[in-house]
Amino acid sequence: MLTALGGTTPTPPDGITAEMVVVDNFDQLAASGRQKVAGKIVLFNELFDKQKAAAGLALEAYGEAVAYRAEGPKRAAELGAIAALVRSVGGADYRLPHTGWSGPAGIPAGAVTSEDADLIAHLAAQGRVRMHLTLTSENGPEVLSYNVVADLKGSDHPEQVVIVSGHLDSWDLGTGAIDDAAGVAVAMETAELIQRLHMRPTRTLRVIAWMDEENGGRGHDAYAKMHANEFANYAAVMESDLGAAHPLGFNAKVTATALGWLKPVQNILASFGANIIKQTNHSPGSDIAPMANAGVPALGIMQDSRTYFNYHHTAADTLDKIAPQELRENVAAMAVMGYALASLPESLPR
Amino acid sequence: MLTALGGTTPTPPDGITAEMVVVDNFDQLAASGRQKVAGKIVLFNELFDKQKAAAGLALEAYGEAVAYRAEGPKRAAELGAIAALVRSVGGADYRLPHTGWSGPAGIPAGAVTSEDADLIAHLAAQGRVRMHLTLTSENGPEVLSYNVVADLKGSDHPEQVVIVSGHLDSWDLGTGAIDDAAGVAVAMETAELIQRLHMRPTRTLRVIAWMDEENGGRGHDAYAKMHANEFANYAAVMESDLGAAHPLGFNAKVTATALGWLKPVQNILASFGANIIKQTNHSPGSDIAPMANAGVPALGIMQDSRTYFNYHHTAADTLDKIAPQELRENVAAMAVMGYALASLPESLPR
Repeated sequence: MLTALGGTTPTPPDGITAEMVVVDNFDQLAASGRQKVAGKIVLFNELFDKQKAAAGLALEAYGEAVAYRAEGPKRAAELGAIAALVRSVGGADYRLPHTGWSGPAGIPAGAVTSEDADLIAHLAAQGRVRMHLTLTSENGPEVLSYNVVADLKGSDHPEQVVIVSGHLDSWDLGTGAIDDAAGVAVAMETAELIQRLHMRPTRTLRVIAWMDEENGGRGHDAYAKMHANEFANYAAVMESDLGAAHPLGFNAKVTATALGWLKPVQNILASFGANIIKQTNHSPGSDIAPMANAGVPALGIMQDSRTYFNYHHTAADTLDKIAPQELRENVAAMAVMGYALASLPESLPR
Repeated sequence: MLTALGGTTPTPPDGITAEMVVVDNFDQLAASGRQKVAGKIVLFNELFDKQKAAAGLALEAYGEAVAYRAEGPKRAAELGAIAALVRSVGGADYRLPHTGWSGPAGIPAGAVTSEDADLIAHLAAQGRVRMHLTLTSENGPEVLSYNVVADLKGSDHPEQVVIVSGHLDSWDLGTGAIDDAAGVAVAMETAELIQRLHMRPTRTLRVIAWMDEENGGRGHDAYAKMHANEFANYAAVMESDLGAAHPLGFNAKVTATALGWLKPVQNILASFGANIIKQTNHSPGSDIAPMANAGVPALGIMQDSRTYFNYHHTAADTLDKIAPQELRENVAAMAVMGYALASLPESLPR
């Protein structure tokens, strides 16, 4: 079972038939070379490391495997492959194909389930394997779409902005409940909760539901282009884009001094276990990267992600995967942190 | 996402469109009555009890839910429904439809995933839901097929038979690895292992790979018809048809006296934890039921079935679901018990 990857090329309606070349990694692809790859269908049979995921290092497991989805088809095309398949990136063993963004490769590209990848690799080790591949995906015409932005105006420094956000788009195999309807809900609820409690931060709390996080990031790119000259006034940017499971704290691209300032906030977050603040040197969210890279303190909720990549970008990303209590904890984490950042006597040091 | 149920009727090629009636159980169907059901598509939204399964009572959970797959379409048809859907019977939450035998109903019938059943039920609670349903399954022509039977002849009492067995057919969404290629492997390996150890039981050890367990049981029916007059000589019948996970012992339709005789065997089985013998009053395997019902002592391996119904009858029933060490434990369990039953000084009392 397979699914097309984002932004890739369909096959002709009656498909293509070719011999398969199975590689475990980019080194094996390079070692195969153009002579073995040209005119063939390449399968990248990289493994998603379930043990890392189960041990709490799901993002690391994802990072290792997703390189093949993102870069594999392009690299295969460079050696003359006529199509590329990748083993689905994720921990589920339920014959579930996983899609996602893939770098434009000019050839049809899809993901096959781990079970089917195993089978193809097993057969290829015994002899020549030919595949008939039909991918009916289409790239639709460009259409105008929008980020959705709402401000809770700051009482004293309305020009100083704290962004709380998630992204609005999702892969359409499922309904995008955990990636990233949950993040949008968490961001909206942050403002709603602060409003409902009649609290008024001194800075502006800006809720953003980003468009097109999944397929190029044109939503945040457009926002960054339009607002770059205001970034000096931004007090912080936050995003929730790792699902809706129990929050453990935040990944934070902030200075060591800023970390010190956040200690009192951590004490509050500790009441429901969301008090870790892990300093990172990269943006803790893809939509907030333009601001993070411009030096704005950037925080992303660090959800328990042990099972996130079982469902992420698959048909099984549906509402039943969200535990209401855990979603509420995420709202609380972003509301506590968002309110704090929007109300500190001085903005976090950069 | 849905799959057709076994033996059901296809829709016309362009499908059917009708309003949906969602019921949680047979009582609700009866309460709805012909007036609300006639001309509609009925969804049986019965829940598979995951807590029972996780607690080790997966067979009980399956038994409760599978009644709707087996009987639902027929009962819906009796009230004039033009098609029936059942919520997939099983514990997986990976958008995975589950098929299986369904009593001939004369209307198209399929299983939808738990996620889709949730969605339909959620929508139906808010208003009228219409569905366009296309089921392209076909009932193929009858063909001749065979049980596969092999004997390891007994040294002293070749006419006294101990059957070790699994079934050869499977639902073709997956490859039938756990249901029931594993059982066939366990039965074959039992004879192979005893042979390899140069052990010669006094009674005949008969390995059977049954045909058509899944869709009517005509394999064991034909065998029973052909061999009924020999059942008085059968010392025992065994089957493995609950997957390939760690064996805990046996479900056994045997007398209390026979249980006592098996204590020394249990001591051997205890070395790898397969020593439970749980007395049942029904056949512990569907293919061995004709013999069990004729009074032949009948044993079925009791596998750890906590996750069995996550994969059973789905596209995810594939070889990777089998842990080789656990499969070996099942072989050992059946070989120890099979050899014992075929070598006891006297046959087990009936």
